[in-house]
Amino acid sequence: MAQAAPSSPRSYDWAEDHSEDRLHGYTSNTSALPLTQAPTEHSAHSSELPPNKTSSGFRKTRSALGLHPQAPIDEEHDQGPRSELLWSRIRTVLREPFAEFWGVAIMVMFGDGSVAQVLLSTGQTTAPGGNGFGNYQSINWGWGLGVMLGVYVAGDSGAYLNPAITFSSCLYRQLPWRRFPVYFIAQMLGGFVGSGIVYANYLSAIDYYEGGLRTVPPAKTATAGIFCTYPQAFLTKTSQFFSEFIASTLLMFVIFALKDPSNNGVPKSDKWFPLCLFFLIFGLGSCFGWQTGYAINIARDLGPRLMSYAVGYGNEVWSAGGYYFWIPMVAPFLGCAFGGFLYDVFIYTGPSPVNTPWLGLKHLTPGYARRELRAHARRNKEDGIV
Amino acid sequence: MAQAAPSSPRSYDWAEDHSEDRLHGYTSNTSALPLTQAPTEHSAHSSELPPNKTSSGFRKTRSALGLHPQAPIDEEHDQGPRSELLWSRIRTVLREPFAEFWGVAIMVMFGDGSVAQVLLSTGQTTAPGGNGFGNYQSINWGWGLGVMLGVYVAGDSGAYLNPAITFSSCLYRQLPWRRFPVYFIAQMLGGFVGSGIVYANYLSAIDYYEGGLRTVPPAKTATAGIFCTYPQAFLTKTSQFFSEFIASTLLMFVIFALKDPSNNGVPKSDKWFPLCLFFLIFGLGSCFGWQTGYAINIARDLGPRLMSYAVGYGNEVWSAGGYYFWIPMVAPFLGCAFGGFLYDVFIYTGPSPVNTPWLGLKHLTPGYARRELRAHARRNKEDGIV
Amino acid sequence: MAQAAPSSPRSYDWAEDHSEDRLHGYTSNTSALPLTQAPTEHSAHSSELPPNKTSSGFRKTRSALGLHPQAPIDEEHDQGPRSELLWSRIRTVLREPFAEFWGVAIMVMFGDGSVAQVLLSTGQTTAPGGNGFGNYQSINWGWGLGVMLGVYVAGDSGAYLNPAITFSSCLYRQLPWRRFPVYFIAQMLGGFVGSGIVYANYLSAIDYYEGGLRTVPPAKTATAGIFCTYPQAFLTKTSQFFSEFIASTLLMFVIFALKDPSNNGVPKSDKWFPLCLFFLIFGLGSCFGWQTGYAINIARDLGPRLMSYAVGYGNEVWSAGGYYFWIPMVAPFLGCAFGGFLYDVFIYTGPSPVNTPWLGLKHLTPGYARRELRAHARRNKEDGIV
Amino acid sequence: MAQAAPSSPRSYDWAEDHSEDRLHGYTSNTSALPLTQAPTEHSAHSSELPPNKTSSGFRKTRSALGLHPQAPIDEEHDQGPRSELLWSRIRTVLREPFAEFWGVAIMVMFGDGSVAQVLLSTGQTTAPGGNGFGNYQSINWGWGLGVMLGVYVAGDSGAYLNPAITFSSCLYRQLPWRRFPVYFIAQMLGGFVGSGIVYANYLSAIDYYEGGLRTVPPAKTATAGIFCTYPQAFLTKTSQFFSEFIASTLLMFVIFALKDPSNNGVPKSDKWFPLCLFFLIFGLGSCFGWQTGYAINIARDLGPRLMSYAVGYGNEVWSAGGYYFWIPMVAPFLGCAFGGFLYDVFIYTGPSPVNTPWLGLKHLTPGYARRELRAHARRNKEDGIV
Repeated sequence: MAQAAPSSPRSYDWAEDHSEDRLHGYTSNTSALPLTQAPTEHSAHSSELPPNKTSSGFRKTRSALGLHPQAPIDEEHDQGPRSELLWSRIRTVLREPFAEFWGVAIMVMFGDGSVAQVLLSTGQTTAPGGNGFGNYQSINWGWGLGVMLGVYVAGDSGAYLNPAITFSSCLYRQLPWRRFPVYFIAQMLGGFVGSGIVYANYLSAIDYYEGGLRTVPPAKTATAGIFCTYPQAFLTKTSQFFSEFIASTLLMFVIFALKDPSNNGVPKSDKWFPLCLFFLIFGLGSCFGWQTGYAINIARDLGPRLMSYAVGYGNEVWSAGGYYFWIPMVAPFLGCAFGGFLYDVFIYTGPSPVNTPWLGLKHLTPGYARRELRAHARRNKEDGIV
Repeated sequence: MAQAAPSSPRSYDWAEDHSEDRLHGYTSNTSALPLTQAPTEHSAHSSELPPNKTSSGFRKTRSALGLHPQAPIDEEHDQGPRSELLWSRIRTVLREPFAEFWGVAIMVMFGDGSVAQVLLSTGQTTAPGGNGFGNYQSINWGWGLGVMLGVYVAGDSGAYLNPAITFSSCLYRQLPWRRFPVYFIAQMLGGFVGSGIVYANYLSAIDYYEGGLRTVPPAKTATAGIFCTYPQAFLTKTSQFFSEFIASTLLMFVIFALKDPSNNGVPKSDKWFPLCLFFLIFGLGSCFGWQTGYAINIARDLGPRLMSYAVGYGNEVWSAGGYYFWIPMVAPFLGCAFGGFLYDVFIYTGPSPVNTPWLGLKHLTPGYARRELRAHARRNKEDGIV
Repeated sequence: MAQAAPSSPRSYDWAEDHSEDRLHGYTSNTSALPLTQAPTEHSAHSSELPPNKTSSGFRKTRSALGLHPQAPIDEEHDQGPRSELLWSRIRTVLREPFAEFWGVAIMVMFGDGSVAQVLLSTGQTTAPGGNGFGNYQSINWGWGLGVMLGVYVAGDSGAYLNPAITFSSCLYRQLPWRRFPVYFIAQMLGGFVGSGIVYANYLSAIDYYEGGLRTVPPAKTATAGIFCTYPQAFLTKTSQFFSEFIASTLLMFVIFALKDPSNNGVPKSDKWFPLCLFFLIFGLGSCFGWQTGYAINIARDLGPRLMSYAVGYGNEVWSAGGYYFWIPMVAPFLGCAFGGFLYDVFIYTGPSPVNTPWLGLKHLTPGYARRELRAHARRNKEDGIV
Repeated sequence: MAQAAPSSPRSYDWAEDHSEDRLHGYTSNTSALPLTQAPTEHSAHSSELPPNKTSSGFRKTRSALGLHPQAPIDEEHDQGPRSELLWSRIRTVLREPFAEFWGVAIMVMFGDGSVAQVLLSTGQTTAPGGNGFGNYQSINWGWGLGVMLGVYVAGDSGAYLNPAITFSSCLYRQLPWRRFPVYFIAQMLGGFVGSGIVYANYLSAIDYYEGGLRTVPPAKTATAGIFCTYPQAFLTKTSQFFSEFIASTLLMFVIFALKDPSNNGVPKSDKWFPLCLFFLIFGLGSCFGWQTGYAINIARDLGPRLMSYAVGYGNEVWSAGGYYFWIPMVAPFLGCAFGGFLYDVFIYTGPSPVNTPWLGLKHLTPGYARRELRAHARRNKEDGIV
């Protein structure tokens, strides 16, 4: 989204979205422009970038994938002989998807890995301390630091790691909607592969624990809970939904605060963000993690669920908890959208659809929406974006 | 309180209170001025701010609420078309109350949420690790990171999150007393709403745990302790009071140290403050959290207590522990006042009532106090503050 | 110790001891000068400071106490009407002792407080989680963050908080030996008072736990271990000593690394030091805390031991563990001295007695030592230091 | 490795390897130069350094050891009378080995120390909390902070602390291969000595626990697991290998991300690296620590294994787990190499053998390799490096 700063085309991070330039640009054109598409993107790459920097083939492919034509690569690395290699060109085209994939994979490996270790070693008396290799808190650590390290790894793509957060960023922070599909695919694959590696790693331990079976909660030796979330038995459907919804709301609300450059309490530099995220995820796990397992992320839940279905956990991965599986698919999107809405209504003063007439609800009327889509398409065409 | 620096009107944070300008201004006028009212506030907004920046209606309403006429908003966001919207104007008027409300709500959601999860899942053998979803330490984490994230969210209001800390800041750090009521209301509402959300989230779990009842400690399946604090049975009234008092004293003493710009051990930048606060709250929980539950904050205790009374926990929320409820209302104020006093007596060298003749106790004499109030009122009038 | 930089007289922190100026001064005069006395101190205050800055009475009193004549106070705060008040003058004279006192008191309140809470609530089934208010790890947290917050509080005195560290700093880092006694007294008092507050806070809980008695380990309901350390029963005297010695060695070795400005791995800014110290103390507690309770600090052990003797724990506080009490008095000094020696031998390249001929052991010969003491005394006299 | 920057000869840290100068130099000469030998090293010391700075004897000895002729010492400390002392000269010659030795020793002391404390105190009811002095999580803390503090200590050698990481750095990040042997020896010695100190410290506790025996898992009171790792009994050989391999892959992947200066998500300053490493190691321990004990480091496993063999744990230290001992010797090297490969393939855009034709696999062909070795030797000769 660093479209306004073609001289530093690598700044895809959220914090950069609110750079002075961007805001100025936005403010001056204001309400006539679609909020979900950065107005400066179109002019940036077509006119100001030297045409020989990356071949126009690159730019077309990236644009077709929904990415910004200019890849977020260190400028120096983007030139010279190294960048001419075939694989380097592929990596440049798929830069953000690769980053999101590995970010989510790292996150899920640590997160699911911690559940696996704690669950499978429950009560093992030969452990140092005599009571298993970790306790529930170890899982809070695992997910918290998994997200933190995933964000470090995926810095070049903005480190969303969660389709619901990408979604809210499109909705409220002018991340172009065209980005969503390719990010979504990369994130889902990351969840699938990350959990698959955990499964491979704990294969003989699962065999040992389950006696060769593969069962789903509430079975007594169920191990499916290592990979995706299953709700507590006493929960009503409403409570299931509410628990995921409220955790997602909190997630988005706090992340928008942490990424709000005009919030006085937040360090201007982005150095603190991953550590704060560790605390946030740890907190969601200790405070809202019991009832439904705090999925709050379709990539972290559906990806591993598909993996566990693929390796033979059976149809119960879908039917368990009264077909619970759709809740961590839907609730995070709604919760994050609501959390972002709350933050923008009560605290955010920067550019956001909420800061337009009718709290931005006008965007939901068909006429307004159609006008915006047409304007969006026209600008894309002018700039040669497919 | 950034009244001395009209060019950057957003710096309401504590650390900014001690900016060079402020101290200079203070030092030169010194003892003739009331310590609890920043002397430079009155001239700042009336003369130096461009009159068209925010409408005078705004300023009057904010002033009537006890807030600084100038809202702590990014200057750029405070102009342009966005700021003309009705809701934006409301948000500008209620900027600090909104921030305090959400800061406290976030804090209480994490804090009470962690108690709820640990308490309600006690001993659940199907948990990974076989022994519930968390232990007492998870509650230390919950409150510690709740305060930390609440401070990040509430940066624009100074992130007091605790009426006793607002109180001490008025007493020793020249936060105008007029601020106290509106901050207090916002903080109390935050505690009420935050704990209400936790109640809603754990509704079916509480039903399951209590069998439909709602009981208060020392009942066997009491869940009222999720929301507000109840003392251990063996405590005398004195010990109850002392425990809350000493924890509040420590809280204020360390916070004043962390916010003392002339203390060599403290990083000058404010980036570290929320993390240090995490450690401080974690520490109070591990070291002084057992006997009375370390409320140390009326907004965190009375707000949720009212909520739990409203949803049907009965009169025992007031009578339990020998009508303990008044102690976390009173002790934090006295403890924080004492902690601030100790810090200012032994370490602080900046402007504070303690650094006036008679260690500032002269301020307590009727004649001196009356003179100050009159001077205060006169200056307010001159500057047009209601 | 910032004697070479009279324009910024507040830099008493360790990191500042190795300022370029100091090192230059030291290097040029090198082996003829006593290593344990900063050569530039004597000229600094007598000639370059404006005589009217602090009254000469101050300077004489501070000098007599062994402190640098110039107090580490924000220059601006050191002038103006505030500084003329009687109490301000007392506070200026006793600046470092006050800081060390409160730093140690804060440290001990958190540390001993965490032991008290965990010990006295052991196994309480009404706790959230059903198993007491904390576990052994809470004690690691308590001491770790106690030291961290104590360092923040005591920034103006250098935040030694431990006579053994003051000792090693005199030995290897040119902290004047004259500082040692007043620091020592302040640190001991801090330990005494801090543990006394913890005792007062947990008075009724101790009564409840012990049934009115006060016993010392290995008694079954002993509570003396809250305040000072008692060794495990199976330990030989050698193991007792070795455990304290090795923990102190590690403490000093790592602190010297963290404070070595020429060590590439260490952030130049001091902001990270308190957090690193948290990890260091946490680590010593988890790794070397079982056998003897990791006192590694006479102020943290003897101070509270005296307090517990005073309130009636009886002669066993001295006789327990085969008159163990002298080990945490002696071993920390020897261990810290050894740890500092190892660091200076193997890694440190700056000014240190170890970096003189014979690895500095020449300083131990009577002739050399006598010559140094005479030179030291002569210089003090010339500069008017009592 | 700071060969390109002779004016600041101390920058041996990884982050410095990728300084602009280096990359420029590399990029311009690109594929003709051997990737594993920094091209600028040879000219730097021979021409640009003043000949009188360090004696040529030094430089020859260091070069013979495989180190850069110029030691990473604060320039100021490298001159003057101090540097003329015999021991100072020895320390200068052995600078990096000393740093790695102590870094690994510190790491192992904390890591093995935490296992010792938790294991030997398992279930001790007299502990505060009534259940031993720590739990499995304390071991995660111990290793995590051991690595963190070890990195602080060993800053001057680059703080590899793990031969597999040195290996990957040679392979992908142009650390000269000549460095590997001396680093390896220092790291192994550090592991041996560090674990020996832990053994000495817990000698009487081990006697008490084992009743004078020394046994190896799966014996009932085995204490050999304090020092090196033994796998769970149910594991197949493949699972044993995979567990170590995947943990090492993660280790290297994340470290390369954290050290990638062109990764947007990573703070440019190196201040955060040790803390991130704490989280990484903590995570590996909570998520992949159960099955094989996460050795992921030959120096941390073989060194202590030799020590435990030497003090009498018997041949079982080798035969246990089906002669498991070779897996933590081999798997970390392969895993780290694979992790580095993955990072360079998918994310890294800087100079790496992977960013050469055929993904760098050409380097594995005999002809290409021979040509490189010859060119390497010729350049060394020209520059007078033995």
